[in-house]
Amino acid sequence: MLHNDTFLRALLREPTEYTPLWIMRQAGRYLPEYNATRARAGSFLDLCKNPDLATEVTLQPLARFPLDAAILFSDILTIPDAMGLGLYFAEGEGPKLERPLRDEWEIRNLSAPDPDTHLSYVMSAVSQIRRSLAGSVPLIGFSGSPFTLACYMVEGGGSEDFRHIKGMLYRRPDLLHQILEVTTQSVILYLNAQIEAGAQAVMVFDTWGGTLSTPAYEEFSLHYLRRIAAELTKQAEGRRVPSIVFTKGGGLWLERIAEAGFDAVGLDWTIELSEAKRRVGHQVALQGNMDPSVLFGSPQAIEKEVERIITSFGADPGHVFNLGHGISRFTPPEHVAVLVDAVHNVSRRLRTNN
Amino acid sequence: MLHNDTFLRALLREPTEYTPLWIMRQAGRYLPEYNATRARAGSFLDLCKNPDLATEVTLQPLARFPLDAAILFSDILTIPDAMGLGLYFAEGEGPKLERPLRDEWEIRNLSAPDPDTHLSYVMSAVSQIRRSLAGSVPLIGFSGSPFTLACYMVEGGGSEDFRHIKGMLYRRPDLLHQILEVTTQSVILYLNAQIEAGAQAVMVFDTWGGTLSTPAYEEFSLHYLRRIAAELTKQAEGRRVPSIVFTKGGGLWLERIAEAGFDAVGLDWTIELSEAKRRVGHQVALQGNMDPSVLFGSPQAIEKEVERIITSFGADPGHVFNLGHGISRFTPPEHVAVLVDAVHNVSRRLRTNN
Repeated sequence: MLHNDTFLRALLREPTEYTPLWIMRQAGRYLPEYNATRARAGSFLDLCKNPDLATEVTLQPLARFPLDAAILFSDILTIPDAMGLGLYFAEGEGPKLERPLRDEWEIRNLSAPDPDTHLSYVMSAVSQIRRSLAGSVPLIGFSGSPFTLACYMVEGGGSEDFRHIKGMLYRRPDLLHQILEVTTQSVILYLNAQIEAGAQAVMVFDTWGGTLSTPAYEEFSLHYLRRIAAELTKQAEGRRVPSIVFTKGGGLWLERIAEAGFDAVGLDWTIELSEAKRRVGHQVALQGNMDPSVLFGSPQAIEKEVERIITSFGADPGHVFNLGHGISRFTPPEHVAVLVDAVHNVSRRLRTNN
Repeated sequence: MLHNDTFLRALLREPTEYTPLWIMRQAGRYLPEYNATRARAGSFLDLCKNPDLATEVTLQPLARFPLDAAILFSDILTIPDAMGLGLYFAEGEGPKLERPLRDEWEIRNLSAPDPDTHLSYVMSAVSQIRRSLAGSVPLIGFSGSPFTLACYMVEGGGSEDFRHIKGMLYRRPDLLHQILEVTTQSVILYLNAQIEAGAQAVMVFDTWGGTLSTPAYEEFSLHYLRRIAAELTKQAEGRRVPSIVFTKGGGLWLERIAEAGFDAVGLDWTIELSEAKRRVGHQVALQGNMDPSVLFGSPQAIEKEVERIITSFGADPGHVFNLGHGISRFTPPEHVAVLVDAVHNVSRRLRTNN
């Protein structure tokens, strides 16, 4: 029994009483209670790998705000870590891999990790979070996209220019395809294992696909996203498990992304929702799309922007409110409260007036 | 007398025998001769402020490759430096400003620098480069866009999230507009002084406009770009001085950008030229748009991508070939030679076959 299934219904473009919302990185450093748990855990990675603590931080934002979904607390690089590439975090920097893929033999030796052995800590966290949620709101599972994982695997971390992976793309496309084949298989196994463990929706984060040219995006990212959409488990616990894909900076490719086979498409804030809806709203639900920086503004500015975005989409079914990128660690938590209330109130009012 | 005016004619959508090209940051660290001059100059800033040396490095790529335009060697932050914000370069990082704008009184006291006093070193470089070019190819002058300059002025350097300027945008939009007013006036004076000194085309780099939401882009970047387009000197030395605007990541807003009043629009590599041409090619010339990373590929991959891009635009007038971002310092110079030849050869062949 799910008390609040607004999020799941909106993803399937069924009518809802209001626009549901959750926030990318909602369990994160802007919350003092998160920082306290993290300090207790030791490192970020210890936190990810400890199902008790991962459950604790997953639930923290829900205790503060009436959000409409929980998202598994985990890292985007669990798959490369399970492949043996050595995930670590340098203080003040993003995630890094100790052994980036540069040599052909390493790439040829890559294989998809079994989610139930090397990633069992993730599945334990999923089950435990589901039990703790006790049917209050649905739980979202997630993975990085094959191309995004490959970026980290080849670069060894984040990058400004992605010169190693793009060098490979334009010099040895066969090697990059080899990485993407294995990574795609890994993502399918990983997400389906999360669904099996209790995830009620899944999201694929294609954080770096938007750095490609149109034909390169088609060949090295979207092609593999389509295969994931086709192979995802569609039904669990007697209900549809909706899927969401989010290519940051993918606004120009919206029609193709909407045809990839996912139920919903995440949007960053550069595109207008009305425009996105006009282009693909008959095919998929849309998730987004406020600039996280709006949360640095005044409560009035936040409310104004929420009103603008919700009105831009209109009262039709098929919108899940979110930010267009993870929430900043510098966000005042009380501004998140303003956001959540505004989304619920404005969208209820809009439905009443229609 | 200009021996090769292909670039200027293409910007005005007049027929040309081949597609002209230049390369953003063509005088840069991928060239050993540039690194030698820079070492001799002391710092990057000393190089910018010394007209003899700025002339030397501006001409270096033209000695190697048959490029169709020269671009003034300078920094994007000369205006904030002339405003007294203290430009400096930390080793291995981008440009920084010693005194970022955070306080209202500092913003209220900002005024547009007189190009002929505080920026006279730039005008000297322009005149000297023109003399040295001796009519071989045209010289491009440039400036950062008001919003992009404001980003650096408020953040104090580059940024991943632009939280200071976006915080201001959503908290005190009046203050940001005040900065943009002064910066717009400065850019107009600066570019017109460059034209007066001999620049034969000008380009405005809106490097960070693409990080905004659609309405914020309209209000805080495009609005000011329109004013610049309107106030630019249109004619010098008896010929039209074409202008180019480039909002990186602005593909979704192409129609509005094309209506801003510039002769040409720069494009990054995320958009297909055929699509961009279909959307706005009756209004403006298009400049771009190869991913700089293609130059890490094999010569065959470079030629293939050049062919794809040139064919995508077709044989009509109005295309200037360029990269979609500055060339990487890790580029092998011999790959630039492959690029330049490919652009000239493929585009000549395309015109012959049509």
